[in-house]
Amino acid sequence: MVQYPQIDRTFAALADPTRRGILERLGRGSATITELAEPFGITLTGIKKHVRVLEEAELVTTEKVGRSRRCSVGPRRLEDVHAWTQTYQRMLDERLDRFGELLERTKGVPQ
Amino acid sequence: MVQYPQIDRTFAALADPTRRGILERLGRGSATITELAEPFGITLTGIKKHVRVLEEAELVTTEKVGRSRRCSVGPRRLEDVHAWTQTYQRMLDERLDRFGELLERTKGVPQ
Repeated sequence: MVQYPQIDRTFAALADPTRRGILERLGRGSATITELAEPFGITLTGIKKHVRVLEEAELVTTEKVGRSRRCSVGPRRLEDVHAWTQTYQRMLDERLDRFGELLERTKGVPQ
Repeated sequence: MVQYPQIDRTFAALADPTRRGILERLGRGSATITELAEPFGITLTGIKKHVRVLEEAELVTTEKVGRSRRCSVGPRRLEDVHAWTQTYQRMLDERLDRFGELLERTKGVPQ
Protein backbone atom coordinates (compact mmCIF):
# COMPACT_ATOMS: atom_id res chain seq x y z
CA MET A 1 0.00 0.00 0.00
CA VAL A 2 1.25 3.45 -0.90
CA GLN A 3 2.04 5.72 2.05
CA TYR A 4 0.98 9.37 1.86
CA PRO A 5 2.61 11.15 4.78
CA GLN A 6 1.64 14.57 3.41
CA ILE A 7 -2.00 13.67 2.76
CA ASP A 8 -2.18 12.24 6.31
CA ARG A 9 -1.13 15.65 7.63
CA THR A 10 -3.59 17.44 5.36
CA PHE A 11 -6.57 15.32 6.46
CA ALA A 12 -5.55 15.61 10.14
CA ALA A 13 -5.16 19.40 9.81
CA LEU A 14 -8.67 19.68 8.34
CA ALA A 15 -10.23 17.56 11.12
CA ASP A 16 -10.73 20.58 13.40
CA PRO A 17 -13.37 23.32 12.98
CA THR A 18 -11.04 26.09 14.25
CA ARG A 19 -8.36 25.09 11.74
CA ARG A 20 -10.90 25.02 8.90
CA GLY A 21 -12.12 28.42 10.15
CA ILE A 22 -8.56 29.80 10.05
CA LEU A 23 -8.19 28.60 6.43
CA GLU A 24 -11.53 30.18 5.47
CA ARG A 25 -10.40 33.45 7.09
CA LEU A 26 -6.99 33.37 5.36
CA GLY A 27 -8.73 32.50 2.08
CA ARG A 28 -10.10 36.07 2.19
CA GLY A 29 -6.66 37.58 2.92
CA SER A 30 -3.62 37.28 5.18
CA ALA A 31 -3.85 38.06 8.91
CA THR A 32 -1.65 38.26 11.98
CA ILE A 33 -1.97 35.73 14.83
CA THR A 34 -3.70 38.43 16.93
CA GLU A 35 -6.19 39.20 14.14
CA LEU A 36 -6.88 35.47 13.77
CA ALA A 37 -7.38 34.91 17.51
CA GLU A 38 -10.06 37.58 17.97
CA PRO A 39 -13.05 36.12 16.05
CA PHE A 40 -12.37 32.60 17.36
CA GLY A 41 -12.35 33.73 21.00
CA ILE A 42 -9.38 31.50 21.87
CA THR A 43 -5.98 32.37 23.31
CA LEU A 44 -2.99 33.41 21.20
CA THR A 45 -1.26 30.21 22.35
CA GLY A 46 -4.24 28.17 21.11
CA ILE A 47 -4.24 29.89 17.71
CA LYS A 48 -0.46 29.47 17.41
CA LYS A 49 -0.80 25.71 17.96
CA HIS A 50 -3.47 25.45 15.26
CA VAL A 51 -1.40 27.59 12.86
CA ARG A 52 1.62 25.33 13.51
CA VAL A 53 -0.43 22.25 12.49
CA LEU A 54 -1.63 24.03 9.33
CA GLU A 55 1.95 25.13 8.57
CA GLU A 56 3.26 21.55 8.89
CA ALA A 57 0.55 20.47 6.43
CA GLU A 58 1.75 23.30 4.10
CA LEU A 59 -1.76 24.75 4.10
CA VAL A 60 -0.54 27.98 5.71
CA THR A 61 2.71 29.96 5.56
CA THR A 62 3.78 32.47 8.17
CA GLU A 63 6.30 35.28 8.15
CA LYS A 64 7.62 37.51 10.91
CA VAL A 65 6.74 41.15 10.15
CA GLY A 66 8.06 43.49 12.82
CA ARG A 67 6.70 42.27 16.14
CA SER A 68 3.87 40.20 14.70
CA ARG A 69 3.59 37.02 12.65
CA ARG A 70 1.58 37.29 9.43
CA CYS A 71 -0.24 34.17 8.19
CA SER A 72 -1.30 33.46 4.59
CA VAL A 73 -2.67 30.47 2.70
CA GLY A 74 0.17 28.07 1.87
CA PRO A 75 1.34 26.43 -1.36
CA ARG A 76 -0.81 23.33 -0.88
CA ARG A 77 -4.24 23.51 -2.56
CA LEU A 78 -5.88 20.26 -1.33
CA GLU A 79 -5.17 18.58 -4.69
CA ASP A 80 -4.20 15.34 -2.91
CA VAL A 81 -7.41 15.36 -0.83
CA HIS A 82 -9.44 15.96 -4.01
CA ALA A 83 -7.63 13.21 -5.89
CA TRP A 84 -8.11 10.62 -3.14
CA THR A 85 -11.77 11.39 -2.41
CA GLN A 86 -12.65 11.50 -6.13
CA THR A 87 -10.96 8.14 -6.84
CA TYR A 88 -12.77 6.57 -3.88
CA GLN A 89 -16.10 8.10 -4.90
CA ARG A 90 -15.69 6.90 -8.50
CA MET A 91 -14.93 3.39 -7.25
CA LEU A 92 -18.17 3.36 -5.23
CA ASP A 93 -20.18 4.78 -8.15
CA GLU A 94 -18.82 2.15 -10.56
CA ARG A 95 -19.69 -0.60 -8.09
CA LEU A 96 -23.21 0.81 -7.77
CA ASP A 97 -23.49 0.88 -11.59
CA ARG A 98 -22.40 -2.77 -11.84
CA PHE A 99 -24.96 -3.69 -9.17
CA GLY A 100 -27.66 -1.82 -11.15
CA GLU A 101 -26.70 -3.67 -14.36
CA LEU A 102 -26.86 -6.99 -12.51
CA LEU A 103 -30.35 -6.12 -11.26
CA GLU A 104 -31.41 -5.21 -14.83
CA ARG A 105 -30.07 -8.50 -16.21
CA THR A 106 -31.69 -10.66 -13.51
CA LYS A 107 -35.08 -9.03 -14.31
CA GLY A 108 -35.14 -11.02 -17.56
CA VAL A 109 -34.31 -14.30 -15.83
CA PRO A 110 -37.40 -16.48 -15.07
CA GLN A 111 -37.87 -17.15 -11.34
CA MET B 1 -18.44 29.65 13.13
CA VAL B 2 -20.45 26.58 12.18
CA GLN B 3 -19.42 23.37 13.97
CA TYR B 4 -19.27 20.16 11.92
CA PRO B 5 -18.78 17.29 14.38
CA GLN B 6 -19.41 14.68 11.68
CA ILE B 7 -17.01 16.24 9.15
CA ASP B 8 -14.35 16.40 11.91
CA ARG B 9 -14.72 12.64 12.36
CA THR B 10 -14.61 12.06 8.60
CA PHE B 11 -11.40 14.06 8.10
CA ALA B 12 -9.78 12.41 11.16
CA ALA B 13 -10.79 8.94 9.91
CA LEU B 14 -9.18 9.65 6.52
CA ALA B 15 -5.91 10.89 8.10
CA ASP B 16 -4.45 7.37 8.29
CA PRO B 17 -3.11 5.29 5.34
CA THR B 18 -4.39 1.98 6.78
CA ARG B 19 -7.89 3.39 7.19
CA ARG B 20 -7.86 4.76 3.62
CA GLY B 21 -6.58 1.34 2.51
CA ILE B 22 -9.47 -0.38 4.31
CA LEU B 23 -11.95 1.92 2.53
CA GLU B 24 -10.31 1.20 -0.85
CA ARG B 25 -10.52 -2.55 -0.11
CA LEU B 26 -14.17 -2.33 0.97
CA GLY B 27 -14.92 -0.20 -2.08
CA ARG B 28 -14.30 -3.37 -4.10
CA GLY B 29 -16.58 -5.48 -1.88
CA SER B 30 -17.32 -6.37 1.75
CA ALA B 31 -14.79 -8.32 3.85
CA THR B 32 -14.45 -9.84 7.31
CA ILE B 33 -12.01 -8.40 9.88
CA THR B 34 -9.70 -11.40 9.23
CA GLU B 35 -9.78 -10.83 5.45
CA LEU B 36 -9.01 -7.15 6.01
CA ALA B 37 -6.11 -7.82 8.40
CA GLU B 38 -4.18 -10.11 6.05
CA PRO B 39 -3.01 -7.70 3.28
CA PHE B 40 -2.21 -4.95 5.80
CA GLY B 41 -0.01 -7.24 7.88
CA ILE B 42 -1.33 -5.86 11.17
CA THR B 43 -3.03 -7.58 14.10
CA LEU B 44 -6.77 -8.24 14.27
CA THR B 45 -6.89 -5.88 17.27
CA GLY B 46 -5.21 -3.17 15.19
CA ILE B 47 -7.67 -3.62 12.30
CA LYS B 48 -10.61 -3.63 14.72
CA LYS B 49 -9.52 -0.26 16.14
CA HIS B 50 -9.27 1.25 12.65
CA VAL B 51 -12.66 -0.21 11.66
CA ARG B 52 -14.18 1.27 14.85
CA VAL B 53 -12.92 4.76 13.86
CA LEU B 54 -14.34 4.32 10.34
CA GLU B 55 -17.64 3.08 11.80
CA GLU B 56 -17.92 6.12 14.08
CA ALA B 57 -17.39 8.31 11.02
CA GLU B 58 -20.18 6.31 9.28
CA LEU B 59 -17.76 5.43 6.48
CA VAL B 60 -18.03 1.71 7.28
CA THR B 61 -20.81 -0.51 8.64
CA THR B 62 -20.22 -3.88 10.25
CA GLU B 63 -22.48 -6.83 10.95
CA LYS B 64 -21.94 -10.03 12.92
CA VAL B 65 -22.26 -13.05 10.60
CA GLY B 66 -21.80 -16.31 12.48
CA ARG B 67 -18.45 -16.08 14.24
CA SER B 68 -17.02 -13.29 12.11
CA ARG B 69 -17.75 -9.61 11.62
CA ARG B 70 -18.41 -8.50 8.04
CA CYS B 71 -17.45 -4.93 7.04
CA SER B 72 -18.93 -2.92 4.17
CA VAL B 73 -18.77 0.70 3.00
CA GLY B 74 -21.11 2.82 5.13
CA PRO B 75 -23.87 5.29 4.26
CA ARG B 76 -21.55 8.31 4.21
CA ARG B 77 -20.13 9.14 0.79
CA LEU B 78 -17.70 11.99 1.63
CA GLU B 79 -20.21 14.61 0.41
CA ASP B 80 -19.31 16.88 3.34
CA VAL B 81 -15.58 16.59 2.62
CA HIS B 82 -16.23 17.39 -1.08
CA ALA B 83 -18.45 20.34 -0.20
CA TRP B 84 -15.94 21.89 2.19
CA THR B 85 -12.85 21.41 0.03
CA GLN B 86 -14.65 22.68 -3.09
CA THR B 87 -15.92 25.82 -1.33
CA TYR B 88 -12.43 26.52 0.00
CA GLN B 89 -10.83 25.88 -3.39
CA ARG B 90 -13.34 28.16 -5.13
CA MET B 91 -12.61 30.91 -2.61
CA LEU B 92 -8.87 30.68 -3.37
CA ASP B 93 -9.48 30.60 -7.15
CA GLU B 94 -11.73 33.69 -7.00
CA ARG B 95 -9.10 35.53 -4.98
CA LEU B 96 -6.46 34.57 -7.53
CA ASP B 97 -8.77 35.82 -10.32
CA ARG B 98 -9.25 39.17 -8.54
CA PHE B 99 -5.48 39.44 -8.11
CA GLY B 100 -5.03 38.71 -11.84
CA GLU B 101 -7.59 41.42 -12.75
CA LEU B 102 -5.81 43.87 -10.47
CA LEU B 103 -2.51 43.10 -12.22
CA GLU B 104 -4.16 43.60 -15.63
CA ARG B 105 -5.64 46.95 -14.57
CA THR B 106 -2.38 48.24 -13.06
CA LYS B 107 -0.57 47.44 -16.35
CA GLY B 108 -2.35 50.45 -17.88
CA VAL B 109 -1.39 52.76 -15.02
CA PRO B 110 1.73 54.88 -15.70
CA GLN B 111 4.54 54.21 -13.20
